[in-house]
Amino acid sequence: MTNAEPLAPELETIVANAAAASDAYAAVNPVERAKALVAVADALDASREELVSIAASETGLTEARLNGELTRTAVQLRLFADVAVDGGYLDVRIDEADTAFALGVRPDLRRYHIPVGPVLNFSASNFPFAFSVAGGDSAAALAAGCPVIVKAHSGHPQLSIRTAEVVAEALAGAGMPDGVFQLIAGQAAGIAVLKDARIKAGSFTGSIYAGRLLADIAASRPAPIRFYGELGSVNPVFVTKAAIDEQAAELAAGYVTSVAGSAGQLCTKPGFVFVPEAHGLDEAIASAAAPVGEHRLLNQKIAKSYVERRDAIIGTAGVRVVAEGGIRIDDEGHGWATPTIVAVSLDNLRAGRETLMDEVFGPMSVLVEYPAGADLAAAVPELFEGNLTATLHLGTVESAGEGADVEALRDLIRVLTQHAGRVLFGGWPTGVAVTPAMQHGGPWPATSNDSSTSVGTAAISRFLRPVAYQSAPDALLPEPLRTSNPWNVPQAIAPAGESTQWGSSAK
Amino acid sequence: MTNAEPLAPELETIVANAAAASDAYAAVNPVERAKALVAVADALDASREELVSIAASETGLTEARLNGELTRTAVQLRLFADVAVDGGYLDVRIDEADTAFALGVRPDLRRYHIPVGPVLNFSASNFPFAFSVAGGDSAAALAAGCPVIVKAHSGHPQLSIRTAEVVAEALAGAGMPDGVFQLIAGQAAGIAVLKDARIKAGSFTGSIYAGRLLADIAASRPAPIRFYGELGSVNPVFVTKAAIDEQAAELAAGYVTSVAGSAGQLCTKPGFVFVPEAHGLDEAIASAAAPVGEHRLLNQKIAKSYVERRDAIIGTAGVRVVAEGGIRIDDEGHGWATPTIVAVSLDNLRAGRETLMDEVFGPMSVLVEYPAGADLAAAVPELFEGNLTATLHLGTVESAGEGADVEALRDLIRVLTQHAGRVLFGGWPTGVAVTPAMQHGGPWPATSNDSSTSVGTAAISRFLRPVAYQSAPDALLPEPLRTSNPWNVPQAIAPAGESTQWGSSAK
Repeated sequence: MTNAEPLAPELETIVANAAAASDAYAAVNPVERAKALVAVADALDASREELVSIAASETGLTEARLNGELTRTAVQLRLFADVAVDGGYLDVRIDEADTAFALGVRPDLRRYHIPVGPVLNFSASNFPFAFSVAGGDSAAALAAGCPVIVKAHSGHPQLSIRTAEVVAEALAGAGMPDGVFQLIAGQAAGIAVLKDARIKAGSFTGSIYAGRLLADIAASRPAPIRFYGELGSVNPVFVTKAAIDEQAAELAAGYVTSVAGSAGQLCTKPGFVFVPEAHGLDEAIASAAAPVGEHRLLNQKIAKSYVERRDAIIGTAGVRVVAEGGIRIDDEGHGWATPTIVAVSLDNLRAGRETLMDEVFGPMSVLVEYPAGADLAAAVPELFEGNLTATLHLGTVESAGEGADVEALRDLIRVLTQHAGRVLFGGWPTGVAVTPAMQHGGPWPATSNDSSTSVGTAAISRFLRPVAYQSAPDALLPEPLRTSNPWNVPQAIAPAGESTQWGSSAK
Repeated sequence: MTNAEPLAPELETIVANAAAASDAYAAVNPVERAKALVAVADALDASREELVSIAASETGLTEARLNGELTRTAVQLRLFADVAVDGGYLDVRIDEADTAFALGVRPDLRRYHIPVGPVLNFSASNFPFAFSVAGGDSAAALAAGCPVIVKAHSGHPQLSIRTAEVVAEALAGAGMPDGVFQLIAGQAAGIAVLKDARIKAGSFTGSIYAGRLLADIAASRPAPIRFYGELGSVNPVFVTKAAIDEQAAELAAGYVTSVAGSAGQLCTKPGFVFVPEAHGLDEAIASAAAPVGEHRLLNQKIAKSYVERRDAIIGTAGVRVVAEGGIRIDDEGHGWATPTIVAVSLDNLRAGRETLMDEVFGPMSVLVEYPAGADLAAAVPELFEGNLTATLHLGTVESAGEGADVEALRDLIRVLTQHAGRVLFGGWPTGVAVTPAMQHGGPWPATSNDSSTSVGTAAISRFLRPVAYQSAPDALLPEPLRTSNPWNVPQAIAPAGESTQWGSSAK
């Protein structure tokens, strides 16, 4: 199949390289693939000083934060090395041939997941390591056996180039095929490559506007592909009266820390915190916010947008400033912000929703004051679309699943589950663990495809496709499907004579 | 969130019913859900005589075929009862809280799959039971815990109504909530419901044209949803010289049976069979086809289209008729067809590809004669897009993974794996087993989303979404995530202190 619009020569070379690497890389055995991922992690660690220094100058993020993020990025690669070797992600299913099957002779069928082919990942601005060149989607795609092309974010161009060199060198040093890892830059290049028929999946972290644009392109290709965009989230938090009574000071301090960290430029920043009227947190919040120093926002565009959104929210009817904070624009147009917390009644939030409900990218958050007996479960679908997270702060008795309002609480949990990918009990949604059970994704507009996660080892499913072999001779089967199981992967075997166990016993 | 265009009152009622049933049905425990699926299977069996009789008159398919299909449909429901109770599809992952995790304190995280919400399934014309009202997608969605709305196919309206009554009654009798299963009819209704924000996933089996139209609608909604369309497939078959030498007669007979069954109106009909030049099969094929009786095509539109496609193919340069067959149009415009097999050289297939390569829906197939030494692996991407299946007929020595051309063979298997969802060794692709390891799906245009299957128990993944709970008190967790595991589902537990096993040991 040919492309409608030919690529510019340098992009054509890159996409052709990725396509040419696809078979050879898919055929690399998992132990070698894991060693390559570990080699990338080691190489990032070895280049830590240089990479963090470039990142700090390009993004304004602190070295402490960037060092932590680089560690996370390296650990993430090591975790995916484990995933590749474990082989559970292959979801191997073997139906033994069965002449007595309920529907007549059942052939020998063996199904597993194969890498989907070359993948295009769009980097994020706010995580120059963990959601960028060597970030989660790159790690997941490489672990799955897919060549990766990363579209660099314009917010950290030098870091992207240097990181890509480190990654590509480490992969080459581990014996991986040429073309397994490449970098492109520029919006137009990203769009052109996304349209190319040789690209088999896309991923993205960023704004709703840009993510939707790219998702629509992926869906409207002659051969549509899956596109995993992580877009907008305001991460509502619900605090009960019992929780306020028990731990007001910790709540205020935790809230400000979560909003102020990385200058609020995190996709899981708590944007709305529902508290009972007369919560009495104002002073504690203001005190916690006062000592927070200025933090540069990622770039001038984000600073400008933050100024506008902050002004609009503070100017909305019924909004009360709890911690004023602010933003100073320097000579280069960079914004230096301190956290702003405002409060509004639930009724005024409803009245001002056109202005108040959109995500604010920066260190600002809204306390929503609800009256006793308010139906929060009903307020969620009224006010919110999908979110990455939703958080509950409960009192001790409520946490035990007891107390008068436990049914209302269960109702709220049910509704939050429908609206979010991760529901937290206590704590704050920022600081996402990279683990097997993490879910970082949720209903639109949190993501453009809610079937997967962009953090944690389950992300490998994004870059896989199932295929089955019927009646294949063992010598011609891929290793994970052979009866001898040379890779020692989990195999779910349906033995002959055991069809419809539960269904038939229930007759 | 509101809909742009309000639904007509009767559709509004149906969608509102499905949405209202969603929570209650999701909360039904798996044993009760399984009992309900078995009750539907039993009810279909009990109504067999009536349903098959309506189906035969509406579709022209034989009673033998329809009885087999109804059995398959009932077995399919029982299999999904097993899947619901087994709980493996929940993919439960539990990270124990770990203060020594590589990235700092890891919270208790528990992730599983929840039902996505109300689902809209578009029925197929060619499987009035198995891919229709009570078909695979309905069974999968019901097993997952999703309310189902089925858009009836216009080719079997009375059967659809009657089947839906049987299904809804059985579900109600098993105590399932109202609104769990409903039927709509008409293209406009299907499109209007697909656009409704309360519908959370869609599925379809039918033409590339209609499937793409619906997939585009699903992707362009304000909140896009996953849409699983099973569209076009021509199912290439590759026969080696060794296979011809060993089993010419069986190949000819099996080929004709596969093309003629259900008048070739199967998505896995072998459309192109690559055979070596001088294969000598003509007479055996013609003899096998001669006694096949006339079979009515599903509807007048399909008959008309078949006449046109058949004439165009026979009229293409280089095409030789092997078994002429034909089609007779009766007074009502129905077409009665007998199988047509034509042959063409690989070069002439290339030359005539504009006419020859599209799917023909009906009992016609093309033998493609290739010269000795032809690079079939290269011909596949040149001629084909994605397919549901690809089949290899090998000789005994080749099947053992031996012989001179084994590398060429491995190359061909690799390429077929990239172009299809199921690769068969011997046999014919029609007759799809409903089992755990079946894969019925493949790259575009075989499907609009190649991440899943529309046949077999793995189809349940279509209607699920992951969600995680962080630090949740046990009393407030859903059953499958509790440490006590009251539903006895598989739980993959990541114990504290065991992070990055492989990655760290490799350092």
